[in-house]
Amino acid sequence: MAPSPTALSVALLGCGTVGQEVARILMEDAEELAARTGARLDLVGVGVRDTSADRGPHVSRDIVTADLEGLVDRADIVVELMGGLEPAGSLILRALRAGKTVVSANKALIAARLEELSTAATESGVQFSYEAAVAGAIPILRPIRDSLAGDRITSIMGIVNGTTNYILDMMTTHGSGFDDALARAQELGYAEADPTADVGGGDAAAKAAILASLGLHTVFPLEAVHTEGITEVTSRDIEAARASGHVIRFLAIAERVAREGGADAASVRVHPTLVPADHPLAAVRGAFNAVYVTADNAGELMFMGQGAGGAPTASAVMGDLVSAARRVVAGGPGRTEAAARSIEALPFAESRTRYAVAVVVEDRPGVLEQIARVFSAHGQSIESMSQGRAPEGADAAAELRIITHEGAEGDLHATVQDLASLPSVIRKPTFMRVGAK
Amino acid sequence: MAPSPTALSVALLGCGTVGQEVARILMEDAEELAARTGARLDLVGVGVRDTSADRGPHVSRDIVTADLEGLVDRADIVVELMGGLEPAGSLILRALRAGKTVVSANKALIAARLEELSTAATESGVQFSYEAAVAGAIPILRPIRDSLAGDRITSIMGIVNGTTNYILDMMTTHGSGFDDALARAQELGYAEADPTADVGGGDAAAKAAILASLGLHTVFPLEAVHTEGITEVTSRDIEAARASGHVIRFLAIAERVAREGGADAASVRVHPTLVPADHPLAAVRGAFNAVYVTADNAGELMFMGQGAGGAPTASAVMGDLVSAARRVVAGGPGRTEAAARSIEALPFAESRTRYAVAVVVEDRPGVLEQIARVFSAHGQSIESMSQGRAPEGADAAAELRIITHEGAEGDLHATVQDLASLPSVIRKPTFMRVGAK
Repeated sequence: MAPSPTALSVALLGCGTVGQEVARILMEDAEELAARTGARLDLVGVGVRDTSADRGPHVSRDIVTADLEGLVDRADIVVELMGGLEPAGSLILRALRAGKTVVSANKALIAARLEELSTAATESGVQFSYEAAVAGAIPILRPIRDSLAGDRITSIMGIVNGTTNYILDMMTTHGSGFDDALARAQELGYAEADPTADVGGGDAAAKAAILASLGLHTVFPLEAVHTEGITEVTSRDIEAARASGHVIRFLAIAERVAREGGADAASVRVHPTLVPADHPLAAVRGAFNAVYVTADNAGELMFMGQGAGGAPTASAVMGDLVSAARRVVAGGPGRTEAAARSIEALPFAESRTRYAVAVVVEDRPGVLEQIARVFSAHGQSIESMSQGRAPEGADAAAELRIITHEGAEGDLHATVQDLASLPSVIRKPTFMRVGAK
Repeated sequence: MAPSPTALSVALLGCGTVGQEVARILMEDAEELAARTGARLDLVGVGVRDTSADRGPHVSRDIVTADLEGLVDRADIVVELMGGLEPAGSLILRALRAGKTVVSANKALIAARLEELSTAATESGVQFSYEAAVAGAIPILRPIRDSLAGDRITSIMGIVNGTTNYILDMMTTHGSGFDDALARAQELGYAEADPTADVGGGDAAAKAAILASLGLHTVFPLEAVHTEGITEVTSRDIEAARASGHVIRFLAIAERVAREGGADAASVRVHPTLVPADHPLAAVRGAFNAVYVTADNAGELMFMGQGAGGAPTASAVMGDLVSAARRVVAGGPGRTEAAARSIEALPFAESRTRYAVAVVVEDRPGVLEQIARVFSAHGQSIESMSQGRAPEGADAAAELRIITHEGAEGDLHATVQDLASLPSVIRKPTFMRVGAK
């Protein structure tokens, strides 16, 4: 066996907020990291497109380079923090194929090309890890991949986007409207100037695909994630949720669904969800993230922490880096779990959950029966029904709030469509999904 | 390189509740586990002292043996679930020295002999893992060891004993007395007939030592854990805690403490602690466990789940087993982190926290000033003082409830001693520690 290396050269690709924090930690904690790893971690280069920009006090100008491929070639470990699909994808593949360990925080890339990148790592016998790509500082991917490796995960529900949790929390606790809450999130730097990826659900969908892939031992395609953002959540929805003992949380959900006489399927989706007010996910406030996992043997587990920010994300990157470096020092090949078996995406129409449906109706005898008949005709069984105050501008009306037992999306959509066509129904009914019993 | 094995032989030492669950999972999920691991996991033997006892439906009688050493010798992976110091310790050492992978759930043994066992594993280049020893199903040791490997943990606070959390929760939410709550816990099977290890804190102390060792990168001796149980917590304490906006939780605490002009020290202790009512640890109900970790970069993290029970504990054992088996299949040597640097135990008198002190005094002018002077003489600064109702049988008295700013244990003890000697103080003052700001 070759002697253990006494130093490993580390290349940083990208040097924004997270990259600068990684550089800082590598410098400030060099001695302690070397003791824990068994070898020094030497930052040999920082690859960026614009070499003239200031990279903060922890990156010396003489290691900054625009020659990204050259930098990859002279490193033992490549840390990719550029984001985006290219050139990040090509650079990571180049590194993995050359037998280099790779750490990445690039959720979009990983959600899009997990299988290809994992296969390249396995073929070269190196580690490819990306804990920081989901839920920032929270150790969630490693526990799912390793600690729960001998269990069967049946459901993962995550608050994986801090911006939207902050917005929903502001709407819930301060009665803010969506636009005000978003503006406040932007002021505080939680939300980007263009908040589409957050409030539209794209960011959460990428994380859902990664959680589903690892948790359900498959490669779940990003395109198959059913995605609804929070842009249409109103103060009225929040109030109705409260009235039924719930709060609204924006969840990324990956469920293993048993199908009669067939293999299990995966229901992976991102949408605003009613969560019971006493559920641990309801207690996740502000910009925090949390992931709630249910497994056959472990039962229920929750992981909570900071989902974004330079230092927290850098903590997750550094955990991957030290773990992978230890492996290099020990001399063994890595093993990134290959997708052991594949699990089919459940057609969204077959996805099952409970629903909270709001129907504004004429306030006269017989209407309730009509409404109930529509639910029943589509096999949607009603758990509770209550009457809320009529919305503004609809004086002769009442709002029925119905919570259903578990039913299929397809049936629910058909129910809503039929409700809308009833003469006694004044507005198109709205609904939210109820999760986390 | 030798070809990867297609099957690995697994030996179970001990076959109680957890062992039977591990046997069940190995049998029921054999195919899926093989796909995830890359090799079959064959249960080749179950070692027990009494071979005639029934071991449930998942352990076939012909693999049960009393020849523990012989069983160890013919296994690739040894799963030790016997508990106790011996013969578990000798058997594990025998296995490790012979280059076998070992998984254990034996907190008492690991707290007592972590250094020796880890060294044996490192020397043989094999994995020794024991996730199930702390907080049952909750993945906590692996995240601390690997995911936070590049961060600096400053504090770990854990609810790591479900029995005591159940008792305190019953006292808090139902107003039960300690004895009633304990009796109920015994009825439900949460507490043993002899509850000493739980309510006296011995169980939590072993877990605190393990958390401290991994989290602070040292080997923290069990004897150096300051341990106070919950047997003296009264309904009155619970009520006083509530009055000041707290709940009482039984915490295992491991803190890194900076000392002027010297190396950091470790304060590791187990005691009932006042936790703010809106702190996530206050929301941990019933027999659940949770561990709250603070690190320089990650910030605050919480891990919650089931801390005991056959299936949850077996989940953690299986996670270790599959992870270690993957490593064997990949052909690389393992690396159990050696204690990279040692950190001294902080003398308990130097341990610092806030305190809630209850003093029953004569209800007359000037007493308050006397009391305050004692605190001040010992450098204990007072954060708040309020007057509670007098305890039963002390009519002419008042109870002062004082919460201090952070101060040292030694000073607090001296303060309490001096308070007790004041003529105006009617009973020996009591105190609880206030944590988790």
